[in-house]
Amino acid sequence: MSTARSIDLTHVNEWKDGHIHSFQDCLVAEEPLEIRVNSQPLTITMRTPGHDLELAAGFLFTEGLIRNAAQLITLQPVPGKNKANVLEAQVEEAPNFDDFHRNFAATSSCGVCGKTSIESVRLRGIRRPDSRFTIDPEVLCTLPEKLHTGQAVFGRTGGLHAAALFDRTGELLVLREDIGRHNAVDKVVGWALQKNKLPLSESVMMVSGRGGFEIIQKALVAGVPALASVSAPSGLAVQLAREFGMTVIGFLRGRRFVIYAEPSRISKI
Amino acid sequence: MSTARSIDLTHVNEWKDGHIHSFQDCLVAEEPLEIRVNSQPLTITMRTPGHDLELAAGFLFTEGLIRNAAQLITLQPVPGKNKANVLEAQVEEAPNFDDFHRNFAATSSCGVCGKTSIESVRLRGIRRPDSRFTIDPEVLCTLPEKLHTGQAVFGRTGGLHAAALFDRTGELLVLREDIGRHNAVDKVVGWALQKNKLPLSESVMMVSGRGGFEIIQKALVAGVPALASVSAPSGLAVQLAREFGMTVIGFLRGRRFVIYAEPSRISKI
Repeated sequence: MSTARSIDLTHVNEWKDGHIHSFQDCLVAEEPLEIRVNSQPLTITMRTPGHDLELAAGFLFTEGLIRNAAQLITLQPVPGKNKANVLEAQVEEAPNFDDFHRNFAATSSCGVCGKTSIESVRLRGIRRPDSRFTIDPEVLCTLPEKLHTGQAVFGRTGGLHAAALFDRTGELLVLREDIGRHNAVDKVVGWALQKNKLPLSESVMMVSGRGGFEIIQKALVAGVPALASVSAPSGLAVQLAREFGMTVIGFLRGRRFVIYAEPSRISKI
Repeated sequence: MSTARSIDLTHVNEWKDGHIHSFQDCLVAEEPLEIRVNSQPLTITMRTPGHDLELAAGFLFTEGLIRNAAQLITLQPVPGKNKANVLEAQVEEAPNFDDFHRNFAATSSCGVCGKTSIESVRLRGIRRPDSRFTIDPEVLCTLPEKLHTGQAVFGRTGGLHAAALFDRTGELLVLREDIGRHNAVDKVVGWALQKNKLPLSESVMMVSGRGGFEIIQKALVAGVPALASVSAPSGLAVQLAREFGMTVIGFLRGRRFVIYAEPSRISKI
């Protein structure tokens, strides 16, 4: 990851057992990004700069503003003073902004989420991920270490979430970081969209944070058959995953994990 | 904390070193909560049920829809099928919904945040917290353990954020949990609003997650002079705290912490 704009340097004081010393610290950068669609402002997100085009493309896709890469005609910075923080997308079909804002004015650490039920996910036409994908438990156990090793910025700031894709052999395909955990997922999905790799039916997604409803929803939209995390999913997230047949793994630590949904994709059990 | 609605029970499978066993697990509950203001829908948030009136009151306050407890005339569930998930507030001054939605359609793990700069915080009339509050480093070092002990639901689900208030002697005043970390902060602020304890100029807030821009902003609105966490703040969060003179402590672990902003409130250094 390009870390140029992702890190802020600043002087801080450390207190340690009664002693103070001052040093220069790395902080994860956080800046607003405005996304405009067909010349209308759509949303402003607080994100960690870096891979912004992927973030915007992934967001438009996982939130249903576009259904494929072809519908995203252009995506580019808007000329002006804060050029890097404003992106303009031209999309094929004019989205219904009223619907979007009604569904969207929401607040949660799992990201904005106005789709207030599993039913609303079904109404969006989201389908069961391809079920032929299976993964070996021994491969799963190697993922947390690979995620950690790949987190270029986290090691320096201690302040970032990550999302990554691995193939069935455990090879890392892509890793993205952001102060917002659903932004990290959108960056990964945006990468896949731009590389024409959707749906992601041959990969497992691993996230550093908790698996809430919106994370599962975004992964489902991208066709991800299995999602793993070192932490716990929510009840609603598990319910959504079970309804759509997505495998959910939690507490993936050492040689242990918990299977919350769709165990059929874990091989050898 | 009442945990009745905060936990979902479900059967899961554990894989451990090649062996599988099934058990009943506790998952943190996550459900949408709709907040209506003066009969208009304002927002839908994914939250962990419990202390919902505090969440709504705190949200209205930290997002600027009300400026004091008196402006919140009534706040109650809307009769109907999903009664527990819809709250209606009557507030004294009709808020400008256009402004709110324009500032609000945003997405981040630090919560929705359309106030795109520190300047917008200043424009809201938010002031420097009372600066007479100081806290002893030794007291600070006791807070993480108290936060952890107080987390009733986390111990059972592994999936919740917490926010808590402590006085200068380190006594726990209130602790709230939620799957969304800014929801936990709103519940604490809502508690204070309902108990007429605002501004919170005599307490330190501790949060379980990262200190992003929105967390600092919400704490500032409530007049909190010092915010502590076991993790790292973002660069923008630190910048905001420095501008408004709020003390920010990160990496509070064992007998060590980092002071990111306003060290003057740490006594004996």
